[in-house]
Amino acid sequence: MTAYEELTHIFRRYYALNGASAMLGWDNATMLPENAGEPRGEQLAALADVCHEMITHPKLGELFAKAEADKNDLTDWQSANLREMKRGWQHQTAVPADLVSEISKACHESELFWRHARKENNWKDFLPHQANVLRLIRESAQAKSAAMGLSPYDALIDQYDPGTTSAMVDVIFDDLATFLPGFIRAVMEKQADETPPAELPGPFPAAVQKQLGLTMMKKLGFDFTRGRLDESTHPFCGGVPGDIRLTTRYNENDFLSGFFGIMHETGHALYEMGLPERWRNQPVGEARGMAFHESQSLLSEMQLTLSMDFLEYAAPLMRNAFQTSGPAWEPENIYRLVTRVQPSFIRVDADEATYPAHIILRYRLEKRMIEGSLEAKDLPEAFANEMQNLLGITPDTDTNSCMQDIHWPDGAFGYFPTYTLGAMTAAQLMDKARSSIPGLATHIRAGEFTYLFDWLRKNVHEMGSKLTSPELLKHATGQTLNAAIYKNHLQSRYLS
Amino acid sequence: MTAYEELTHIFRRYYALNGASAMLGWDNATMLPENAGEPRGEQLAALADVCHEMITHPKLGELFAKAEADKNDLTDWQSANLREMKRGWQHQTAVPADLVSEISKACHESELFWRHARKENNWKDFLPHQANVLRLIRESAQAKSAAMGLSPYDALIDQYDPGTTSAMVDVIFDDLATFLPGFIRAVMEKQADETPPAELPGPFPAAVQKQLGLTMMKKLGFDFTRGRLDESTHPFCGGVPGDIRLTTRYNENDFLSGFFGIMHETGHALYEMGLPERWRNQPVGEARGMAFHESQSLLSEMQLTLSMDFLEYAAPLMRNAFQTSGPAWEPENIYRLVTRVQPSFIRVDADEATYPAHIILRYRLEKRMIEGSLEAKDLPEAFANEMQNLLGITPDTDTNSCMQDIHWPDGAFGYFPTYTLGAMTAAQLMDKARSSIPGLATHIRAGEFTYLFDWLRKNVHEMGSKLTSPELLKHATGQTLNAAIYKNHLQSRYLS
Repeated sequence: MTAYEELTHIFRRYYALNGASAMLGWDNATMLPENAGEPRGEQLAALADVCHEMITHPKLGELFAKAEADKNDLTDWQSANLREMKRGWQHQTAVPADLVSEISKACHESELFWRHARKENNWKDFLPHQANVLRLIRESAQAKSAAMGLSPYDALIDQYDPGTTSAMVDVIFDDLATFLPGFIRAVMEKQADETPPAELPGPFPAAVQKQLGLTMMKKLGFDFTRGRLDESTHPFCGGVPGDIRLTTRYNENDFLSGFFGIMHETGHALYEMGLPERWRNQPVGEARGMAFHESQSLLSEMQLTLSMDFLEYAAPLMRNAFQTSGPAWEPENIYRLVTRVQPSFIRVDADEATYPAHIILRYRLEKRMIEGSLEAKDLPEAFANEMQNLLGITPDTDTNSCMQDIHWPDGAFGYFPTYTLGAMTAAQLMDKARSSIPGLATHIRAGEFTYLFDWLRKNVHEMGSKLTSPELLKHATGQTLNAAIYKNHLQSRYLS
Repeated sequence: MTAYEELTHIFRRYYALNGASAMLGWDNATMLPENAGEPRGEQLAALADVCHEMITHPKLGELFAKAEADKNDLTDWQSANLREMKRGWQHQTAVPADLVSEISKACHESELFWRHARKENNWKDFLPHQANVLRLIRESAQAKSAAMGLSPYDALIDQYDPGTTSAMVDVIFDDLATFLPGFIRAVMEKQADETPPAELPGPFPAAVQKQLGLTMMKKLGFDFTRGRLDESTHPFCGGVPGDIRLTTRYNENDFLSGFFGIMHETGHALYEMGLPERWRNQPVGEARGMAFHESQSLLSEMQLTLSMDFLEYAAPLMRNAFQTSGPAWEPENIYRLVTRVQPSFIRVDADEATYPAHIILRYRLEKRMIEGSLEAKDLPEAFANEMQNLLGITPDTDTNSCMQDIHWPDGAFGYFPTYTLGAMTAAQLMDKARSSIPGLATHIRAGEFTYLFDWLRKNVHEMGSKLTSPELLKHATGQTLNAAIYKNHLQSRYLS
């Protein structure tokens, strides 16, 4: 067996065990009895320990050296697989074991404390936790930086969106940051002059919502022989590529958020289902990072579903499902309901137009935190300033400001930019799909979505992690991330 | 850390990973999408490999030697835990790795072939598979015999019912074998003279059956914050002690078999839920073998549920659930429906009175097979002879004879006796419970089952695997297995 082959065997088992954890994670959220947390915690901890020991085993360094020396014997895909194996291994081994376990403990405690502190708007007592997590993540970023030849913050981004650097993000986000405040004002002025859209008259029985969701998932190409739909408090797309476990929740007073939620998660699911089958359980067979993953969910939710073409197809289905009719159910009214813009404090409640401002704000602050030019104690002031600059509003409490998200309490620095990079990637892919697929709009109006998803499968899903994130976007659209396309999308949706 | 403590750490992780497998096994049977078998297979195989490597690691031999040398420092429970660790380890390591994997492959192929051959009554082509499996299991039994100081067949029994030997079983089964043929004839003569009981008039909606099942499970003490009820083709009690996953199936034309099935599985579940919490994830905290496990399910199903006291309580609940009435729903009619006796070829369809004859037959044949005095090729004839002797009928086909059960095709020699040992243990425990719990019959008629299950928890469940199987029965009832109690039970139920 060559060193490369030996590595593939180790990673195959590593991924199979991670897959077991993923299935148990789904069970946690959907099936686990109320007081069965303890045995489940032990199962997941044992799996995590075994996986960690496997990937940090001393023999791997030697195997990577040998495999890289014989690199010329590998195919393109094998080379990419070796690169991705090594990247994963570096992230796991660059940080000393003591620091890893200190971070894990600190983040766990910080997150637990944050859950209460946020409710009580208690920044003062939470600050020491946040400062400690920041200190440890800085140390970790330094260690990854030294091992991987990236800047500390870029080494953190690389965990979530390989190949993307803050130098690239700066250019794109600065462009957007210049555009957004004026754009948001213009949209609000325009919408203030219009008659408000009519709310959909509920209630919306959960069973009907579910049936409609299942119908749409099938229409989009979700393979129910390799996946399921269940319910959980926080919807997610879980499981493994050959066994996708999608979840949603049904609010009988709010149909649209559930409907768009299912369409969002189905975008994630189709990406996982479309990954290259021959590379299952190998790093190169995985989805290409979180920005691309978010691009697939947002393409389904914000590019496909939130379009007049789609709503012209779907509105009659909705009326039929709920046995109702009336002007509120006209496609244009639904479209206008989902495109209302209003700056607000909370990111997860933000609309499409103001969401990127929330992300740019966080990106700028966390980059400065990791670089050392912003301390945790100065977060409330810095957060308020950036929010005023980008959104024109000033947070009223710390809970509505720097304490609102789980990411920083939990140490997940480097993740935030992927949300907006994903939204931009979705717009760019849809733009390319429109010019590449003849009659796409007509197909969508007819409820024929296979043209779109086949195109995505061929140009994105089947590429797995063969290319870096920027390379994959160039492969699929002919160009790297282009802010102009996203700005055009926003302008044509909100100002035309 | 002492050697004993180090062993507990290894076993804690081993049990947690086995627990993960158990949860995925439940998911297989209840939730798995049709074509998601491949990723699941990889997850389970990776878990099995990791567990096997963990338990056969060379350092364990040394740790056992050290721990046994320092045995005087251990408490009773710790000593028993060490004994059970070593027993499990011996079963895993006594057989050479090559033979283990040969057996696994041969049994897998044999079982696959058997699934078709049984349908086609094709003994001739299946025989080579059965002969090969027998040859390999004999080798395995020899290896276990040498390592554990037991006879080859006793070493196989020890996998399922530790502490029980064929010398003990011979005495008990010979006694029963003398008793059964005349007893069965007498019961049939008696029943031939009676008016047949009335069938329950269906259909029985699945949703009503489920609601009634949930009600009964709660009444018996099933803790739904640490377990659930779902559906599967083959009902079972799965999961882990802190997270019990019970399954059932609903036949809308047959209420009683589903009802008794839920009561059976709930008996298993209460045993698992009652195991000593402080010994979770250690061998001594496990259930005491398959005979005791079957005793708990049969105590619930055949001693509690199939009693006039219980049916007097439950019949009104049944009538109320199905919104029905009439003579068929009288407790005595239901009792008579479930106690009809008729010898037949198929074990899994056998009634309480003829079931032990099926087991004694298999026990006698498999003991001879392992000892070397019966070959696979001679099975059909030997099976037919024993069936004629014990049940007074001669099988018409090989499918209705030695090919009917999965156990031998799958290499599970040594398992069969546990069914009847379990039934006898159930009768003996119930006999003791009746004399130990004042007013038990009155409690049962009032739907108060906590007296019975608290007694079982204290005398059986909470003992885990501290004692061997015969010791535990003596601890709970004051005597070892006594065939007279079981014969009395049968006589009083069927002939009084």
